[in-house]
Amino acid sequence: MKIGLFQMNTQDNKAKNLEDALTAIDKLAAQGADLVVLPEMFHFLGPDEQKPLQAEPIPGPCIDRLQQKAREKKIYLHCGSILEKDGGKIYNASVVFNRRGERVAFYRKIHLFDVEIPGGIVYKESAVVTPGKDIVTFDCDGVTVGLSICYDLRFPELYRRLADKGTSLILIPAAFTLMTGKDHWEPLIRARAIENVCYVAACGQWGFHPPNNQCWGHSMVVNPWGAVIAQARDGETTVLAGLDFDYMRGVREKLPALQHRRRDIFG
Amino acid sequence: MKIGLFQMNTQDNKAKNLEDALTAIDKLAAQGADLVVLPEMFHFLGPDEQKPLQAEPIPGPCIDRLQQKAREKKIYLHCGSILEKDGGKIYNASVVFNRRGERVAFYRKIHLFDVEIPGGIVYKESAVVTPGKDIVTFDCDGVTVGLSICYDLRFPELYRRLADKGTSLILIPAAFTLMTGKDHWEPLIRARAIENVCYVAACGQWGFHPPNNQCWGHSMVVNPWGAVIAQARDGETTVLAGLDFDYMRGVREKLPALQHRRRDIFG
Repeated sequence: MKIGLFQMNTQDNKAKNLEDALTAIDKLAAQGADLVVLPEMFHFLGPDEQKPLQAEPIPGPCIDRLQQKAREKKIYLHCGSILEKDGGKIYNASVVFNRRGERVAFYRKIHLFDVEIPGGIVYKESAVVTPGKDIVTFDCDGVTVGLSICYDLRFPELYRRLADKGTSLILIPAAFTLMTGKDHWEPLIRARAIENVCYVAACGQWGFHPPNNQCWGHSMVVNPWGAVIAQARDGETTVLAGLDFDYMRGVREKLPALQHRRRDIFG
Repeated sequence: MKIGLFQMNTQDNKAKNLEDALTAIDKLAAQGADLVVLPEMFHFLGPDEQKPLQAEPIPGPCIDRLQQKAREKKIYLHCGSILEKDGGKIYNASVVFNRRGERVAFYRKIHLFDVEIPGGIVYKESAVVTPGKDIVTFDCDGVTVGLSICYDLRFPELYRRLADKGTSLILIPAAFTLMTGKDHWEPLIRARAIENVCYVAACGQWGFHPPNNQCWGHSMVVNPWGAVIAQARDGETTVLAGLDFDYMRGVREKLPALQHRRRDIFG
């Protein structure tokens, strides 16, 4: 399986963000990607007060364009995430389409980012967004893929549940800040791969997002041994990596940590 | 609080291993260590067939010497681990003494290391050792300290339980192999610190242990932001680090990930 990531520098122009994403998807599909992943909030990143106005239903105008693209290119397509409007509530939601353009997964971010970043920046995602509660996987040509978004990365219990469901590839669309990303992004991603003995693909936002958000980028694919096998440079750019699930099974045979979980103690 | 680690190259001479440890404890106590930690299997590392013969009861000759030392130096002393003989069974066990030489913690390794390391080395710890089942913390001058040993590091659910008990400092005596250590040691240790927003001190064996074991060393102390604040060079050596729990509380205030755990979903 080939996976393609599009590391974006999403701004507040939704039409342009969508066109940029569609162009990158075309490029990654031409390079042979079976599955393309966009970053968190791929369609809009701007001032907080605009966020509720930019939320869209699913299905809806933005997501429908991705559905068409998945069908046209006959690829699996993960939208990263968008602000989803549903019944007066707003979610941070991911949708995945298969090669026929059928929706095969729908995930709403479980852990919301309410922090004060050193350097003086305050985020309170829960002021706008309602959290999800469902643990979601989908089948990608026979491979079980587990979903999560950004801040979820800090909560190993989510990934243990995904492992319980047979996940061989974890996806993490993100908009990790520069200040947390420089110290937390890579060790946490590698730890999730190592402890769950699976691939992890993390597709981040990069660069400055007015009014005051700076993102870390460093989108990467990590193998089940914990090695970074592909990583984005700074900038808007694509990453392509080949995943070898026979290799993964070999690692799991030699280092059967998933079989050593003490369910008698930890449930 | 000052913590001291003694990174050892334990061999099959128990008397020498113990004397080396006592000398290093003297040195670290003289440098102001409040808590000294030894590595896993500090008293004996040799051929598998000798291991049952070298196991000792707790209390017993080896551990009693450490107890005297804790009392003499008025420090907290963590034995790393030894092979413990109890009622026909053998455990991989840690003991901690307080400044008065009283036993304040006793932990038996929960996850046993049964693997085939790339490079052709096969370990089957469970052939000799019986696993423990209790989750253990102790109070060190008002700080809650959580116990684990080596291979436990791969199981985030143990550290979540320690966090539930209020752990501010995780201890990981270890004998991590060279082949796994080079890729897994640091990201896993840093991830445990980051996700549980606490200090982690990992004290490893280093170097060659006949007949065929090579250990990674790199004993380290990681702060609650995930930064490595002290790290051992190659060789038998000591590491000293200052821990600042006001700093930890500050990180927890700004990045309250422990409060964001979704107990409604994950229990």
